[in-house]
Amino acid sequence: MAATRRPGRNHLFVPGPTNIPDRVMRAMMVQSEDHRSVDFPALTKPLFEDTKAVYGSKDGTIFLFPASGTGIWESALSNTLSRGDKVLASRFGQFSHLWIDMAERLGLEVIVQDEEWGTGANPERIGEALRADKNHEIKAVMVVHNETATGVTSDVGAVRQAIDAAGHPTLLFADGVSSIGSLPFKMDEWKVDCAIAGSQKGLMLPAGLGVICVSQKALKAAETSSGQNDRLAHVYFDWADHQKQNPAGYFPYTPSLPLLYGLREALACLNEEGLENVYHRHHVLGEATRQAVAAWGLKTCAKEPKWNSDTVTAILVPEGVDAAAIIKHAYVRYNLALGAGLSKVAGKVFRIGHVGDMNELSLLGAIAGAEMAMLDHGVKVQPGSGVAAASSYLRENPLSKS
Amino acid sequence: MAATRRPGRNHLFVPGPTNIPDRVMRAMMVQSEDHRSVDFPALTKPLFEDTKAVYGSKDGTIFLFPASGTGIWESALSNTLSRGDKVLASRFGQFSHLWIDMAERLGLEVIVQDEEWGTGANPERIGEALRADKNHEIKAVMVVHNETATGVTSDVGAVRQAIDAAGHPTLLFADGVSSIGSLPFKMDEWKVDCAIAGSQKGLMLPAGLGVICVSQKALKAAETSSGQNDRLAHVYFDWADHQKQNPAGYFPYTPSLPLLYGLREALACLNEEGLENVYHRHHVLGEATRQAVAAWGLKTCAKEPKWNSDTVTAILVPEGVDAAAIIKHAYVRYNLALGAGLSKVAGKVFRIGHVGDMNELSLLGAIAGAEMAMLDHGVKVQPGSGVAAASSYLRENPLSKS
Amino acid sequence: MAATRRPGRNHLFVPGPTNIPDRVMRAMMVQSEDHRSVDFPALTKPLFEDTKAVYGSKDGTIFLFPASGTGIWESALSNTLSRGDKVLASRFGQFSHLWIDMAERLGLEVIVQDEEWGTGANPERIGEALRADKNHEIKAVMVVHNETATGVTSDVGAVRQAIDAAGHPTLLFADGVSSIGSLPFKMDEWKVDCAIAGSQKGLMLPAGLGVICVSQKALKAAETSSGQNDRLAHVYFDWADHQKQNPAGYFPYTPSLPLLYGLREALACLNEEGLENVYHRHHVLGEATRQAVAAWGLKTCAKEPKWNSDTVTAILVPEGVDAAAIIKHAYVRYNLALGAGLSKVAGKVFRIGHVGDMNELSLLGAIAGAEMAMLDHGVKVQPGSGVAAASSYLRENPLSKS
Amino acid sequence: MAATRRPGRNHLFVPGPTNIPDRVMRAMMVQSEDHRSVDFPALTKPLFEDTKAVYGSKDGTIFLFPASGTGIWESALSNTLSRGDKVLASRFGQFSHLWIDMAERLGLEVIVQDEEWGTGANPERIGEALRADKNHEIKAVMVVHNETATGVTSDVGAVRQAIDAAGHPTLLFADGVSSIGSLPFKMDEWKVDCAIAGSQKGLMLPAGLGVICVSQKALKAAETSSGQNDRLAHVYFDWADHQKQNPAGYFPYTPSLPLLYGLREALACLNEEGLENVYHRHHVLGEATRQAVAAWGLKTCAKEPKWNSDTVTAILVPEGVDAAAIIKHAYVRYNLALGAGLSKVAGKVFRIGHVGDMNELSLLGAIAGAEMAMLDHGVKVQPGSGVAAASSYLRENPLSKS
Repeated sequence: MAATRRPGRNHLFVPGPTNIPDRVMRAMMVQSEDHRSVDFPALTKPLFEDTKAVYGSKDGTIFLFPASGTGIWESALSNTLSRGDKVLASRFGQFSHLWIDMAERLGLEVIVQDEEWGTGANPERIGEALRADKNHEIKAVMVVHNETATGVTSDVGAVRQAIDAAGHPTLLFADGVSSIGSLPFKMDEWKVDCAIAGSQKGLMLPAGLGVICVSQKALKAAETSSGQNDRLAHVYFDWADHQKQNPAGYFPYTPSLPLLYGLREALACLNEEGLENVYHRHHVLGEATRQAVAAWGLKTCAKEPKWNSDTVTAILVPEGVDAAAIIKHAYVRYNLALGAGLSKVAGKVFRIGHVGDMNELSLLGAIAGAEMAMLDHGVKVQPGSGVAAASSYLRENPLSKS
Repeated sequence: MAATRRPGRNHLFVPGPTNIPDRVMRAMMVQSEDHRSVDFPALTKPLFEDTKAVYGSKDGTIFLFPASGTGIWESALSNTLSRGDKVLASRFGQFSHLWIDMAERLGLEVIVQDEEWGTGANPERIGEALRADKNHEIKAVMVVHNETATGVTSDVGAVRQAIDAAGHPTLLFADGVSSIGSLPFKMDEWKVDCAIAGSQKGLMLPAGLGVICVSQKALKAAETSSGQNDRLAHVYFDWADHQKQNPAGYFPYTPSLPLLYGLREALACLNEEGLENVYHRHHVLGEATRQAVAAWGLKTCAKEPKWNSDTVTAILVPEGVDAAAIIKHAYVRYNLALGAGLSKVAGKVFRIGHVGDMNELSLLGAIAGAEMAMLDHGVKVQPGSGVAAASSYLRENPLSKS
Repeated sequence: MAATRRPGRNHLFVPGPTNIPDRVMRAMMVQSEDHRSVDFPALTKPLFEDTKAVYGSKDGTIFLFPASGTGIWESALSNTLSRGDKVLASRFGQFSHLWIDMAERLGLEVIVQDEEWGTGANPERIGEALRADKNHEIKAVMVVHNETATGVTSDVGAVRQAIDAAGHPTLLFADGVSSIGSLPFKMDEWKVDCAIAGSQKGLMLPAGLGVICVSQKALKAAETSSGQNDRLAHVYFDWADHQKQNPAGYFPYTPSLPLLYGLREALACLNEEGLENVYHRHHVLGEATRQAVAAWGLKTCAKEPKWNSDTVTAILVPEGVDAAAIIKHAYVRYNLALGAGLSKVAGKVFRIGHVGDMNELSLLGAIAGAEMAMLDHGVKVQPGSGVAAASSYLRENPLSKS
Repeated sequence: MAATRRPGRNHLFVPGPTNIPDRVMRAMMVQSEDHRSVDFPALTKPLFEDTKAVYGSKDGTIFLFPASGTGIWESALSNTLSRGDKVLASRFGQFSHLWIDMAERLGLEVIVQDEEWGTGANPERIGEALRADKNHEIKAVMVVHNETATGVTSDVGAVRQAIDAAGHPTLLFADGVSSIGSLPFKMDEWKVDCAIAGSQKGLMLPAGLGVICVSQKALKAAETSSGQNDRLAHVYFDWADHQKQNPAGYFPYTPSLPLLYGLREALACLNEEGLENVYHRHHVLGEATRQAVAAWGLKTCAKEPKWNSDTVTAILVPEGVDAAAIIKHAYVRYNLALGAGLSKVAGKVFRIGHVGDMNELSLLGAIAGAEMAMLDHGVKVQPGSGVAAASSYLRENPLSKS
């Protein structure tokens, strides 16, 4: 009789949602409670403070929405900008594309800087555009910190330097959905004005909690914008409603309790490991993955080492091979979920997410599975070569710095 | 030594969030999975179909958002209407007030019909307003089906009749956040165009899943509106993005898995009890509560029996008594969470939610607790009288019809 | 269509298993782990120490078995005694009966002192029997501290005084299954040699973890007995195997992890409430129940106030009424689980367990339910009278001492 | 700062306890309920029937105890045998040793047949011993089906043939703790009289539920034995008490609810995969492990292929290498739990458990980890060789037959 159950666990290596630690699963198993009770702030008030650490921020303000990261993109734009406002944005992958698309649909005028997929935001070009904007019509620069589609990390600090060098007052928005909590992020140092995170990546939670950290400057922009006639329509994602309630530990509407309890536990996980160790671990696992790719004789989508993302690696399959078929086969035959190539790179790449709660042997299992799936589809890689290279690297490089 | 733990469970009788059945809690305890996998639609596709039953709809289209009910209010307005559009809305409690406030903040022109708190939408006045609107400038009528603040249920069917009698082409929007899944709701029969539900009431889930059922007419309005220059800015809550993905079982952005699995289980719970039984049970528990109130010699906020809500009862405390103090005392001393009076009725009422997963003895415990809290605060009620009246009624009236 | 799901939660008022706090449920949700790992003792070693507090012991030794309380009865007898050994035991209910029955089946000679059901162990008679036992043939005195069948608590301290007054070297065994963790228990002060607890009562866990606290004297008796030819056959429940492993944090065979994690959390619950508060709460809830019984005009099985158990009340129904029918009706109609009358009192009593994690309003719901079930079966009690009496008492007597 | 949390999950490859499927974890998350209620048998009665399938039995009777497998060993012996009875037992590893030790401590006379560790029960020698036992003094033959310590599976069917060929009426007891539910077991065909399973291996549950399947012949032996003066003392593990209650769906004492609910779900898992597929999968994963061992140039403890266990492989490390150090290092450095060598093979072997809920990539992760741990300790194996060999085999051999 045909099996209707697949044995063992699914090996989840998409670049989000990521594996939820058991203790976070436990923490989320909560009965409903009155979110207006006198006890409730004991849960919530520390969250607003403690979440800032993963942003590298002390001066920012955290808002928590029942929403996915897409909603938080919108929250950043609709709170601070008005119809017809100009924004400057780099496009070099599916997610930077989608954010730009959103901005246009919301009624903003987006100056798009297309970069080759496999590279990232170009601080020089950004600086140029800003210098050319004598009237300071550009209200915001939008940067995707980590482009999940191509496995590329942009240098947000360099973008800030370019802005400052241009002496331009623009706001700086960063999409950190697949970086915050996994890659070093320095909100205050980089003077990011809106930094967007989702719950289902480095924060190791299910999707459904949208997190944004907002600078004082962005809060002021929101105040100004809110009075204007051509403001972008929004209430749900409005910061001002939250500002009235959050300081006392409450929300303007019913929050999703499991995710708040989960966030508390996830932050505890990150702190117990140590954020520096977390960042280091992502680097080590990312590098181990790249060692495997090299041993297979394949190339990553990232054009140069400086673009390498430590949360996701997009791997180019040889000409004539259908990456989508490999991904489907890996899932059906080996219970391994790999990320697909999107848009321009559909069918050309598969992606290994190495983000969130993960260690050496989980990753080696996935590398073995990717290799088997490639071999099954005629990609000529040396059996065992990926694991050999990755494991040799991992033996030399412990996950923890300390 | 002072206790730092309170024994036993919290008695949750706010009108939402409601008690989550253990089996729904279990169902939500899921590890992350790839929401683009070939297996995923087996979970999601039935949800879009099965959720319609609680709306009393066959012709509608369901959209599921990671959001609270507030977001779904916005989804209804921003998808179908444009800046400056006129809408007609009755106001008779805090939630009808808030929805109107949202509409205004989004840039709509709201014709407000204020009704006495303790009553509901007035079909006659609505009919009048529509008849007076010769040019059909009113694009939508907004009705809160169940006003949670005052414990009042409006007659949406009568509103529909008034619209039809006026021969007016307006859309009809109903907020069913605290009614859908608990009170009879007849989307198709009442020709409701947008019906809004939250997850944390009759659906017995945590907050965080926004549910809307949309008529064909509303979908068409959304299409028309989307091309217009003065559309209300929105992307996250846009239906069109979901319409592209949902039929295949996918979403435009990462959904919150626990809530989808929870929804499946919650719908199974409702179906196993039988929706007719669920509605009947809410009526019986509501009536039992009102029997207790009468035995106490107190009055409900609802002015006449026809306004009585079967999901929440707002109870007026005698002059000179601070309802807020009673609520706080009930929580601190008896671990009983009652709903507070909001806005106009703050301090004058406390509310007992009898919505969601609940049975006779849970309710009787709450009635006993409310009575004790009142006695402790000097309200002269006969000890045991509430439970005596409610239990006598409950002995005669089984929760299940069949 | 007939409902196949019952709404709301079951109201569990049998005297065990008891309600498990949500946080204990969470704590038990653990994946398997290697119980021989270097990390494991960090979990287990504190358990052996911390569990002693609920026994009122510093000098005792704790053993933890994957077993129910029945197994731990056997562990006490088979480790310390030999075939044909004489033991002295009082019988005054179904559980004292069953323990005696076990002793006989194991090959011991039991001198049974029958006491009227509704009373407990009689220290004077015990003293007499011991004084008459000039040759000290009686090796152990067996006392059920709390007889769950009749709602009677024996005075173990007085039994100890009787033993000492008789100058008899016998061991003293106490069954504390339905008392330990709920009623004051003073292992060291009373010089109890074996004290037996189960997990599913005051420890608020599922059944399956058998707990025994053993005195130095009992350990010595076990050593002596183990060399003898006519020892009672046993390996699974052998203390010596555990003594070899426990000090290092290990077990002679695979322990049940969820229950160990659950025990840790349950002990934390008890400590956070404070054991004195826990005992006080059980007394207050017990007294409230008795106030309800008196208001109903009924009698408890316990013959005199001094026998009243604070964990369970057995209530005598009027002549001609079938208590079993009331119990079944309460379960089927009101989702209320009451304890049945056993053996001699079958059909004559129903029992309300007020043990474990519970508070005022839970109990009042159960009292209301019991009253309704009685009324439905023709018992003439005043509607609301039980709740009125109990709630008046509870208003005056807070659950927490401090 | 030093990390106090280890990232990612533990890789559990001890031969039990095994990984618990998430759905089984969910199923066990149950609140307490009255185990005497009218609803309870709906849970329990099917368990007694459905559990037989994993034993390959239709004629047997299942007993379920809150206990570990050690307790069930005792249950088999103490129910059927009397003091001084002779039993015949093969010893070829730590677990066969411990069962023999238990029998002796219970007062039985054990005729021990020592076999070389790395081999199993010898049907010929057993036949010889039985033929020599003219007076049929041997009451039972004890066989460990799968010796977890050495990774050896004995041929129970051949033992049965030897018994039958000798025309001896002895009972046949099989310890199937680490085989039942994972390896083919044919209770009825092999005429096994007592077959012992634990919950924490093939049944994919936590430890704490002891399962035994008993033949009609063994039930009769128990009846006979129970009347005798020199019966082995036992009450907790007595079958007769269970026989009185089980047919109606009840137990003589409080059962551990989470484990019963877990058992129901675990059986559903096994059935949905299909038992034949489950057995096949264990064979494939076992063989893949052995391919890795061969590629490393190492030997298994099992002396010949016919002894190979498909649930656990014991791997001999080269002379001069401390296997215990490798195991500890694997745990501390790579979060990989391997089984230790016990007794005679302590320090000489490490064991990889491939039993329970597991698939290819989990196993490959463990093989990679074992290899890394060996390399770190100076064992000269070719990096990647284990994974290369195992994955090549796994690519050719799907886990599912159908």
